[in-house]
Amino acid sequence: MSLKLGLVGLGKIARDQHLPAIAATPGLDLAAIASRNAALPDLPSYPDIDSLLAAGAADAVSLCTPPQGRFDQASAALKAGRHVMLEKPPGMTVTEVEALAALAQQKGVTLFTTWHSREAAAVEPARAWLSGRRISSVRVTWKEDVRHWHPGQAWIWEPGGLGVFDPGINALSIVTRILREAVFVTGAELEFPANRAAPIAASVRMRMGAVPVEAEFDWRQTGPQTWDIEVATDTGLLRLSKGGSEMWLDDQPQVVEEDAEYRSLYRRFVGLVAGGQSEVDLAPLRLVADAFLLARRVEVDAFEDEA
Amino acid sequence: MSLKLGLVGLGKIARDQHLPAIAATPGLDLAAIASRNAALPDLPSYPDIDSLLAAGAADAVSLCTPPQGRFDQASAALKAGRHVMLEKPPGMTVTEVEALAALAQQKGVTLFTTWHSREAAAVEPARAWLSGRRISSVRVTWKEDVRHWHPGQAWIWEPGGLGVFDPGINALSIVTRILREAVFVTGAELEFPANRAAPIAASVRMRMGAVPVEAEFDWRQTGPQTWDIEVATDTGLLRLSKGGSEMWLDDQPQVVEEDAEYRSLYRRFVGLVAGGQSEVDLAPLRLVADAFLLARRVEVDAFEDEA
Repeated sequence: MSLKLGLVGLGKIARDQHLPAIAATPGLDLAAIASRNAALPDLPSYPDIDSLLAAGAADAVSLCTPPQGRFDQASAALKAGRHVMLEKPPGMTVTEVEALAALAQQKGVTLFTTWHSREAAAVEPARAWLSGRRISSVRVTWKEDVRHWHPGQAWIWEPGGLGVFDPGINALSIVTRILREAVFVTGAELEFPANRAAPIAASVRMRMGAVPVEAEFDWRQTGPQTWDIEVATDTGLLRLSKGGSEMWLDDQPQVVEEDAEYRSLYRRFVGLVAGGQSEVDLAPLRLVADAFLLARRVEVDAFEDEA
Repeated sequence: MSLKLGLVGLGKIARDQHLPAIAATPGLDLAAIASRNAALPDLPSYPDIDSLLAAGAADAVSLCTPPQGRFDQASAALKAGRHVMLEKPPGMTVTEVEALAALAQQKGVTLFTTWHSREAAAVEPARAWLSGRRISSVRVTWKEDVRHWHPGQAWIWEPGGLGVFDPGINALSIVTRILREAVFVTGAELEFPANRAAPIAASVRMRMGAVPVEAEFDWRQTGPQTWDIEVATDTGLLRLSKGGSEMWLDDQPQVVEEDAEYRSLYRRFVGLVAGGQSEVDLAPLRLVADAFLLARRVEVDAFEDEA
């Protein structure tokens, strides 16, 4: 029997990634949409999640709305006994997601806080390769052009939208997956545009034991885009590039595969529901909150969507 | 048999509060001190926690050092199989304290993250009185003169020192104790002096379900000092004042008692160790991290220790 899924939010990420992945996932049927402004042909559509839940249109929901409103939506679904899958970041604050995890457990339903970058092709090979090796340093470089990737998305600049940490948290989700031990923030510098409430660039100092872990995030990168994680070890340099889809060892390519991140996520969600389990990992969001907590702040040039 | 305690850090809070409370606690013997600069007559003193641990001078340690260095000290003590009591805040970041909790559990020793304001005389009476009542709003006003209470304490202005949240987290520790449900940050404004890395004032908007919870923290209050929490209910207004030591109902005094916060803490620590238990509550620190994460920042006049 297939799981009847309601998709909540029909913006860029839903159309680019969620719809094709849902269509390709065995055991999952897209049964309804909730969206204020949009609909899909031949599918029941509701203006909001409350009416979708009230109609009994789905056994599970996947939330692709901006993080600022997601807590109330997820709470409503869990309280109604529905399984819930959350886009990253899983909430606006750490406290919100801790409460959702407790609620899911209490209601006996599945909560899945997804981190799509962890499903990139080279992440598990990198984790396996690193597992037996001595690591001496880790360097994250995540530099992209916000105007290209987030055109007109006002919410990313509002409190809770995370600014450059919206992509940066993807890197942190990989780092916390491939390293064996916990990573701690020790300091950060955040660059805030004069007219914005979220940072456009960040430099985060972390450590894993005595091993330095450094991250540079920047949204002002035009030309070539960089999503690299370099791990120096006693037997060579591992480099994950293109957001985790490629793995290189001392500049020799090892894994270079097509993107299948969201298909993996939905396959996992179906499996979690079938097994009566939840998967909630807050480590990436905690690191972002810790970076804001410890940050020195620098004001930089105002940012306008049109250059 | 008494628990042999090592006290780490011999600054203002250790002398004002910890030493008298330890002396008054049955089942607890102050056995050694670790401090870079200070010592006590007739007690073994060590320059740092590592030498105190190596000397086998204590079965448990209480850390009163600034939060920025506390993680390594607490980790060293837990790894050496010692019980650990932490001053508030329990660490520089949420991730640090989560890791300490896991380590304590793994080593089978006690970790106690203290929140001294929760031991104030009126906190438990307030919690009991509120438990059957419908709450309509909560208002926290925590305004004090930083020059009077924190003279020359440079660490509170550094990242990890929390600025005005150093006292403010005391209010949040009471709020999260006396209210029945979880409280979430929904927005904040932080005022940073032009020359400092930590806020001198903060306005934090929170909610408990649909109930508004608002907090005003300010370190620029000369004259009368205010540490009040007001809870409006269907049967009247409860006010905790003087940091939780007084409780008023509709302006009638109920509980007005002398301060015994640190004696309660040490009594609890002895009990936790005897019972083989830990007590770790991160809710207040998570709220502070969430406030920094969601905050809009305002730059205000530079702050100098000498007015």
